[in-house]
Order: sequence, then C-alpha cells, then structure tokens
Amino acid sequence: MVEQPVEEPKVEGFAAALVRQMRAEDTHGHWERKSDAQLLEPFILDKEKRRAIPIIGDPDPDTLWRLQLFYGALCLEIERLTRRMVQPMMKMSHEGFGRMVLIGGRLVVLNKQLRDVHRFGFDSIEKLNAEAEKMLGQAVGMIEKFPEVADY
Amino acid sequence: MVEQPVEEPKVEGFAAALVRQMRAEDTHGHWERKSDAQLLEPFILDKEKRRAIPIIGDPDPDTLWRLQLFYGALCLEIERLTRRMVQPMMKMSHEGFGRMVLIGGRLVVLNKQLRDVHRFGFDSIEKLNAEAEKMLGQAVGMIEKFPEVADY
Repeated sequence: MVEQPVEEPKVEGFAAALVRQMRAEDTHGHWERKSDAQLLEPFILDKEKRRAIPIIGDPDPDTLWRLQLFYGALCLEIERLTRRMVQPMMKMSHEGFGRMVLIGGRLVVLNKQLRDVHRFGFDSIEKLNAEAEKMLGQAVGMIEKFPEVADY
Repeated sequence: MVEQPVEEPKVEGFAAALVRQMRAEDTHGHWERKSDAQLLEPFILDKEKRRAIPIIGDPDPDTLWRLQLFYGALCLEIERLTRRMVQPMMKMSHEGFGRMVLIGGRLVVLNKQLRDVHRFGFDSIEKLNAEAEKMLGQAVGMIEKFPEVADY
C-alpha cells in the first residue's frame, strides 16, 4: 500500500508571492525540499501559539526578518500592480513598537504603526492573504490618488 | 591685567536651533558650562580633520547620534515654518551608506541618500547653516507643492 502524502493547503495569492520572495533569498537551496506551506509556517500564529508568547517582549532577529520579508514582498506586489518602485523603511523604537512606511517616489504609499512585533504573525494563510490584500488596496489607492507625488 | 576671553564665533541661524535641541536633551545639565560653539564643535570637520578619518568605515554611535540630532532639529524647523509635524526615518545599510527621509503626513518632504556617515560633518558653522537652509527650502517647497499629501 502506497503511503498517502499529507494534504497541504494550496498556497495562493499574496502568500504565494511571499514564498517566491523567500525562495529568491534562498541562494544556497536550503529550502528546496520544503513545501510552500512549510515555509509559511513561522508566519502563522494561531491563538494557542500566540498565547504562548509573552505579552511584552523584544522581537528576535528571525521575527524581524519575517517582518521585512512580508513588507518587502508587499513592495514587490505594489510595484507589479502600479509599475512604480516602492521601498520599505522601518523604525523600531522599543519592545516591539515601531513604524513601517513603504515609499514610492515622494509618497508614503503605506504607513503602518507596528506594535507587538515580537508576536508578528497571522491566524492562518487566509488571514495573511486578507491582510495583505487590504494593505495592497490602500497602497494602490494612494498612488492612484497622488500619482504626481509617486512619480516625483 | 585682566585676561581677555577668546573670541568665539556667534552661533546663529539653524546652528542656534541645533544647539537649542542639544540643550533640550541635556536633562542632567552636563553641558551648562559649554558654549554654543563648543557644543557644535563635533559637527565641524575641516579638511584636516576629515583627512584624518579613514575613507571607508562604520559610523560610531556618537556620529549616528549627531546625525539624528541634525535631522531632528531640521524636522523641528520645518514644523516651525509650516505648522506640520515632520518625523525622520533612517535606514543604514553598510559602511556609512543609507537613506534619511523626513515625513510629514504622507509626504516625503526631504529625501537624502547618506554616504560616508562616519565622516558626517561640515567645513564650518557657516557651511552647516548653508546646507541646512538649502534642505529647509526644499522641504518647505515640497509641502507648498503638495499640501494635501502633507495633511493627509
């Protein structure tokens, strides 16, 4: 009898773009044998996992790296949709509080107050996609509203 | 015979605003006995001092602090002139290369590529003022050009 592989959720939408970005950074091929869902696993924090993390804490380097991957992939998606170069800038103040801005030309296309960065994550891949879609919509909307600033 | 005090250059313009900002941070009064010109001294790198610093190097914490003081004071001056809150965000990449943006609302009022941050400084107080005035003019110009983005 052939062993059935475990059915994994199909990774689509922004999550697929995020995975592409992660694999692009994997220059040594460490993750070649990992599935898309496995790569996304650290981004998913369900209620139980979240509860296991202290309420106040400093973000560790892996979490900061995931945050940068997420917003970096968001920039690439905004670029794909609007044909404008967009770059992230982050300011961390203390204990996981900070600010992330995505800048295109002279326009802040997305402005995000960060809090609880040490608990950065999403309930599910669907929630990750929904959150990203919302932010993409806001960013594209800003560029459509102020194209001359984005092109400045 | 009374000893004559050494004549010090009068600190005016943006340099005076920078000194006010430094004294505001001096909550313990360490610098009460220092003159304005003495406080500004680390910002002044004449040709000789500059030559003494290696061409390539990582910026030390004091230099980064002076960079932040300078751009922080610039933000306050932009606020004074335009009645808009402006905040700095910095990204350092490597060996003193990076980017500084001053953001008001959704507008990048000033965008500055940083290089040789480890040698941050000005030939003289006059040069410091001239450089700051130029940047203030650019920032105020951007806000006048795109007020609805600065107020967004």
